[in-house]
Amino acid sequence: MTYLERLAARTQAVGSVLCVGMDPAPDALPDGFGRDLAGVERFCEILLDATMPFAAAVKPNVAFFEAFGSAGIAALERLRGRVPADVMFVADVKRGDIGTTAARQATALYDILGCDAITANPYLGSEAIEPLISRGDRFAYVLCRTSNPGAGELQSLDVAADPSLEAPAEPLYARVARRARTWGQGGTVGLVVGATAPVELERIRAIAPDLALLVPGVGAQGGEVAPVLRHGPATAPPAGGPRGGPAGGLLVNVSRGIAGAALPASGGNSTGPASADVGERLAASAAEWAERLRFAR
Amino acid sequence: MTYLERLAARTQAVGSVLCVGMDPAPDALPDGFGRDLAGVERFCEILLDATMPFAAAVKPNVAFFEAFGSAGIAALERLRGRVPADVMFVADVKRGDIGTTAARQATALYDILGCDAITANPYLGSEAIEPLISRGDRFAYVLCRTSNPGAGELQSLDVAADPSLEAPAEPLYARVARRARTWGQGGTVGLVVGATAPVELERIRAIAPDLALLVPGVGAQGGEVAPVLRHGPATAPPAGGPRGGPAGGLLVNVSRGIAGAALPASGGNSTGPASADVGERLAASAAEWAERLRFAR
Repeated sequence: MTYLERLAARTQAVGSVLCVGMDPAPDALPDGFGRDLAGVERFCEILLDATMPFAAAVKPNVAFFEAFGSAGIAALERLRGRVPADVMFVADVKRGDIGTTAARQATALYDILGCDAITANPYLGSEAIEPLISRGDRFAYVLCRTSNPGAGELQSLDVAADPSLEAPAEPLYARVARRARTWGQGGTVGLVVGATAPVELERIRAIAPDLALLVPGVGAQGGEVAPVLRHGPATAPPAGGPRGGPAGGLLVNVSRGIAGAALPASGGNSTGPASADVGERLAASAAEWAERLRFAR
Repeated sequence: MTYLERLAARTQAVGSVLCVGMDPAPDALPDGFGRDLAGVERFCEILLDATMPFAAAVKPNVAFFEAFGSAGIAALERLRGRVPADVMFVADVKRGDIGTTAARQATALYDILGCDAITANPYLGSEAIEPLISRGDRFAYVLCRTSNPGAGELQSLDVAADPSLEAPAEPLYARVARRARTWGQGGTVGLVVGATAPVELERIRAIAPDLALLVPGVGAQGGEVAPVLRHGPATAPPAGGPRGGPAGGLLVNVSRGIAGAALPASGGNSTGPASADVGERLAASAAEWAERLRFAR
């Protein structure tokens, strides 16, 4: 089965486009969790156990594990085994490098860590990331318009028209969306578009009606849900066809919006919440987000 | 001391701008080395011991270690301890992510792995990579014009003039060079420019006379040395001033050009070369490349 088919099946099973972000910042853990790797891993175990029943996918942000060196990567490898096989495991790594290196990145991410999908950076061009987008059963979300405040510095630069693509003069992010439609074998490339940029999101969807989107930036970063649910789903194959399922391949990531629920509303107490309480709060928050991200076309 | 000062001191000590690339592809190891992590680590130990006396810097390509999972990163951490403190350790990781994540990348690379410098991807803008370029004693080489055949797909797109920067319409790589001059606190940002693009290299140097360059692509990838030595050194501070030393902060990376010397010229024999032979061949090749990359202004 292709990634888009597996994603569609899971999206249908949970009735939501929720992707749970796993970005465990040590200083944002609830009381009672050590600020060390053991505390991070224990929190992630509870997060996964509590939230996966509601999620179409989980997106670990690999830098938060790399920050603990090889021991952190070993923890991520253990946590990967805790994710049910039908929940898509999307590694947020923003990789991309010249051919021989990208091939090793594909080995690291697809073969060793067992990712269903990853995020990739387009700056080196499609030739460079070929090993990341050439496997029929894996998938790369290419950065298009990111959610950070300074995203426009390069991404919004106006690039010249290209008659060979029938492309008008347009911002760089729009050109990336246009070119990405031709990358890979079909059905192995999607786009990352931040919910913090709803106007750009609508424009990207018009340019690339066929590509699956991974949308970060709702919740803590301030992005609104409604425009994402309106313009996020693909409307043409491959992601908008049967393979992408009714949600058109859309995934909406929520990280701090869910993890933050583990903190007691009153600001905490000296003994800290018991793990069971933390798990209950995370599950309740994930259920609420899954409901907000319920997709009915 | 700043990175540029440490780099200048080492460049002066060895009299060369040679950066030894460490990209250990298992299937390119000499006979007698296992195609597993143990073989890779043993080869890298020999490579480091043989070549560091001739090198201004070493550039491990982290993906080649990530391909072995957490055990690969642990091997890289051990190998890092084998590099003399005065040889610059430049991790080729092409990172860059939104603020909170980039801060964890800085922890992973600068604090845990102990890198003197790294490579970074500019697509998310300078705001995103601030944690990677805001430490006075560390350094990031931002991808500008990469060495791969398809680099131009995005990097050569023409972007519109920007009067606020006094920038004409120019290719994206040129705009990245222009903008990168204003990134960081001064002396913490350089550029990656492939030797396979000598015309672009000259143009970039004209736009950014002050930035240190890391130049991959000579040797196996086909780039010529002469244009790199001519246009590679910065001519204005910070990299072109006293802090950048006589070589203007230039580093020229050689990976397969040196590692390939470990293979016997005749194609190998069934017993394989002894480790001592491999070390001798690597040292001879590094010495030769250091000589070709000797810098006398």
